[in-house]
Amino acid sequence: MASKPDQPVAEASSPSASGATPPVSQEDLPVSKNADKRAAAKAEKQNKKADKLASRQKAEVPTQSDPSDPLHEKYGDPPRIQSRAVTGRKWTNIISLTPALADQAVLVRGNINAVRGKGNNAFIVLRQGTATAQAILFKDDKTVSKPMVKYASALSRESVVEVEAIVRKVDTKVEACTQSEVELKVIGIHCISRAGPLPFAPADAARSQAELDASEGPDGEGFVGVAQDTRLDNRTLDLRTPANQAIFRVQSAVSQLFRELLLSEGFQEIHTPKLQGGSSEGGAAVFTLQYFGQPGCLAQSPQLFKQMAIMGGMDRVFEVGPVFRAENSMTHRHMTEFTGLDFEMTIHEHYFEVLDVIERLFTYMFDGLHKRWASDLEAIGKQYPFEPFRWLPSGSPHVLRLDFEEAIKILQDNGFPEAQPLEDLSTELERELGKIIKKQHNTDFYIIQRFPMGVRPFYTMPDPEDPKWSNSFDVFMRGEEIISGAQRVHDPELLAEQATKLGVPVESIQSYVDSFKYGAHPHGGAGVGLERVVMLFCGLNNIRKTSLFPRDPKRLAP
Amino acid sequence: MASKPDQPVAEASSPSASGATPPVSQEDLPVSKNADKRAAAKAEKQNKKADKLASRQKAEVPTQSDPSDPLHEKYGDPPRIQSRAVTGRKWTNIISLTPALADQAVLVRGNINAVRGKGNNAFIVLRQGTATAQAILFKDDKTVSKPMVKYASALSRESVVEVEAIVRKVDTKVEACTQSEVELKVIGIHCISRAGPLPFAPADAARSQAELDASEGPDGEGFVGVAQDTRLDNRTLDLRTPANQAIFRVQSAVSQLFRELLLSEGFQEIHTPKLQGGSSEGGAAVFTLQYFGQPGCLAQSPQLFKQMAIMGGMDRVFEVGPVFRAENSMTHRHMTEFTGLDFEMTIHEHYFEVLDVIERLFTYMFDGLHKRWASDLEAIGKQYPFEPFRWLPSGSPHVLRLDFEEAIKILQDNGFPEAQPLEDLSTELERELGKIIKKQHNTDFYIIQRFPMGVRPFYTMPDPEDPKWSNSFDVFMRGEEIISGAQRVHDPELLAEQATKLGVPVESIQSYVDSFKYGAHPHGGAGVGLERVVMLFCGLNNIRKTSLFPRDPKRLAP
Repeated sequence: MASKPDQPVAEASSPSASGATPPVSQEDLPVSKNADKRAAAKAEKQNKKADKLASRQKAEVPTQSDPSDPLHEKYGDPPRIQSRAVTGRKWTNIISLTPALADQAVLVRGNINAVRGKGNNAFIVLRQGTATAQAILFKDDKTVSKPMVKYASALSRESVVEVEAIVRKVDTKVEACTQSEVELKVIGIHCISRAGPLPFAPADAARSQAELDASEGPDGEGFVGVAQDTRLDNRTLDLRTPANQAIFRVQSAVSQLFRELLLSEGFQEIHTPKLQGGSSEGGAAVFTLQYFGQPGCLAQSPQLFKQMAIMGGMDRVFEVGPVFRAENSMTHRHMTEFTGLDFEMTIHEHYFEVLDVIERLFTYMFDGLHKRWASDLEAIGKQYPFEPFRWLPSGSPHVLRLDFEEAIKILQDNGFPEAQPLEDLSTELERELGKIIKKQHNTDFYIIQRFPMGVRPFYTMPDPEDPKWSNSFDVFMRGEEIISGAQRVHDPELLAEQATKLGVPVESIQSYVDSFKYGAHPHGGAGVGLERVVMLFCGLNNIRKTSLFPRDPKRLAP
Repeated sequence: MASKPDQPVAEASSPSASGATPPVSQEDLPVSKNADKRAAAKAEKQNKKADKLASRQKAEVPTQSDPSDPLHEKYGDPPRIQSRAVTGRKWTNIISLTPALADQAVLVRGNINAVRGKGNNAFIVLRQGTATAQAILFKDDKTVSKPMVKYASALSRESVVEVEAIVRKVDTKVEACTQSEVELKVIGIHCISRAGPLPFAPADAARSQAELDASEGPDGEGFVGVAQDTRLDNRTLDLRTPANQAIFRVQSAVSQLFRELLLSEGFQEIHTPKLQGGSSEGGAAVFTLQYFGQPGCLAQSPQLFKQMAIMGGMDRVFEVGPVFRAENSMTHRHMTEFTGLDFEMTIHEHYFEVLDVIERLFTYMFDGLHKRWASDLEAIGKQYPFEPFRWLPSGSPHVLRLDFEEAIKILQDNGFPEAQPLEDLSTELERELGKIIKKQHNTDFYIIQRFPMGVRPFYTMPDPEDPKWSNSFDVFMRGEEIISGAQRVHDPELLAEQATKLGVPVESIQSYVDSFKYGAHPHGGAGVGLERVVMLFCGLNNIRKTSLFPRDPKRLAP
């Protein structure tokens, strides 16, 4: 039987009725400043209340056990964990708490997601990663004393506790917890790190928009969302929500899958310098710095250096590393620092060899996420529901590839006469094209190739027949560009000529141009933004959700 | 039968007799400036000679076939490779050229490592990565014409050629090539990228010190080494030597093995921001920059952020990324930018849990390099001979672990009374200790734990019994420190106290300190320099050899 608290423990923080403004989503797109402000004001009100409560409680909070209690060794704050001894004790992860462990004694460490004391009983939701379990204390004077219940009931949310307990199978599912088929009958509880007043509780920050909406009453009462800025200002708390835990496991998975496939196809990993002289690609949006008395800058991409690695005799290389863009733009998809997944490879005759790798790479990544990280995708969807990502299998017939000219024609034929054959696509047109392609081909993943030369960088190889076109491509997920790539110019004279034509002084990239003078293999490659892949695969609405500590023109901390 | 040129083709560039100074190693330690200068002067003399030769030849070099030659389609420079068509042709890698392919026709692309024309014959060494093969042209007027031999003979070193050939098994090994059991009977040859005059030839830069010494004649004639600065100034050429090809495959392998083991133990990969406000750990050696009107700096390590990821509810994290140090020091083991391999994990009770991971991690890495990258280690050893790295197997009895106090005693007992119990070890004493331990335990890999608190950073957890000691450790390879690590302070009050005591203003790290206020899990971790691991495993004498494009206070390009 599941021991039932009067209210579900996971909702132990009562809905707020303190403001007249409706609950506000933290992630409207574009971010609504007013909404943010309203939510922030509301949240602050709540926080002040919580602070007051916490400091009032502080005086009363029992942190040590009552020495006269025969059970006094079973609760209380222990000395700081400081590498005193190796005891050989074993800890059980919360995710492993299943009926298979029924009636066994376990030692579990976790954060207090929620706590509710009620007379002689206490109910706790313990959290570890995306997993939660219910722990219960019932005064029986044999294993649980009254002061022990009091100690447990007064624990603040997010405190780290160590719980000794017997696993019990329950008849009625504990709906509020991921480990719904068991509960922990506590026989010992020690707080090893106490949480002070919280700017917000992860349990509150974990609610979906639907939950927030549903809680809203006629007078504006209900749960309140946590504004994005509040989240990012307190990112370590924000990261504790199950959705965020899952997002960063998926982020880790994307680089893992990226490397798995490329290593299996003979690529090697390289690390190119982020500190560079001059400006890396002649661009303007570059962070400059003083480097021992000479001007330096941060790499805007590993582009020139990964090509130089190919000139250094490497056949196929990839890099996973930070990319810096000093662009003063505040959009849902730009950051000043992001993680680039780059690769570059020799080609024998055609840049389609690069596209073949991209196709295998991304279908491998999508398949892998779908199969091996399904539970994380589910955890994300619980807070941020999204339509599953659709892709065509690799091989034959392969991933959809369109010429740029065809893409323009599709747009024009579908009511977008403003699409111009030799101009780049605007973000809006890209998105519209994505919708049309989704409708026609049922895929969120496709490639557009043979872009106009006029919209590509100087190092792009022109089309052999018609220099108005280029041997380049973009790759899209849900109508947003994630990859730019191309065959590169490996002829130093053509390279210098194109650089000059596009206003990049050859002197500023001399060692790069020179590297093609000593026998240059034809080559091509591409670059992907890790955070963008995660955002678009999971249908998230803001890139800041997929960056651990995001950086934009207004945010440099934490 | 192997077709024999009059001289081994691999030595086609004749030894120089142009200077009276002896051949000079490019990597004396410490770098001798005079030796470097002498070598540079000598090399320049040679280069000028080569340049003259190349430009004189340029006028005479045949780049197109003779239209009257019935074989004219079988040689000559083709149009630039520019993605004209997907032909379905297959290319064979040079490393795959073995007797198994005897009598088969192959298509091979490679750089010209060496070439020698002699009347009606031409001998070429083709190179791809670490592999080389001999290709021959004998005029027979059926498959090879006289102008075809002339075309091949005039190809400049490092040019990229595409060779159509029949694989022939040879009776006498082609000693100068890695693919010594076969040669290529050329029936078609097209140069797809011509190399201009070279600052030096990779074939020359690939010689070991022993080879250089052996070539030295009584009048100072002989092969000349290539100075380190010349190499680094022309890094793309330098990277083409077999040893360098292998070094960067080993570098790639080290991160691959690092990730394999950690992913298998439940770690997830994170990416922490390199752009930070203030100075990352309160240190002085930091690169500063302007960040949209506010002061920023580059991360000196992911230390504080990987700890914050743990505070964000992640159990075990790792990061592979650049680390920036604005230290003005020119030594064999420091760079201003290197690749950090960092990890951080919650611990249950003791920082020995971190050491257990390190032990499994490094023995896994060493075993993996030894077994899976043996041929690369061999290629490195050919140019830079080194004593194989020795390590004890993990498990029980485990990797050697010494208390700092014991290490000091060992030094004192072995004739180093200057070793002081509460001071850090100097680089020299570390190296001496390494020698003693190697002699006593036959291992190049060991751990020293329980360092004096006074020599560790503010976030280090003190020993629970005696605050003069700390819960910290260093890990060594061949007597050089590669890892620093510790249990960290997870108590915000103690953290603020220790920061203040060590002169780090708490305000400058406020969000870091705050992150421990919301329930903090005890944790520890470590950081490793990727380039240092490669350098020390392979017994190389300079860290610049293991960085693709090294950065030091004097070098910001290429």
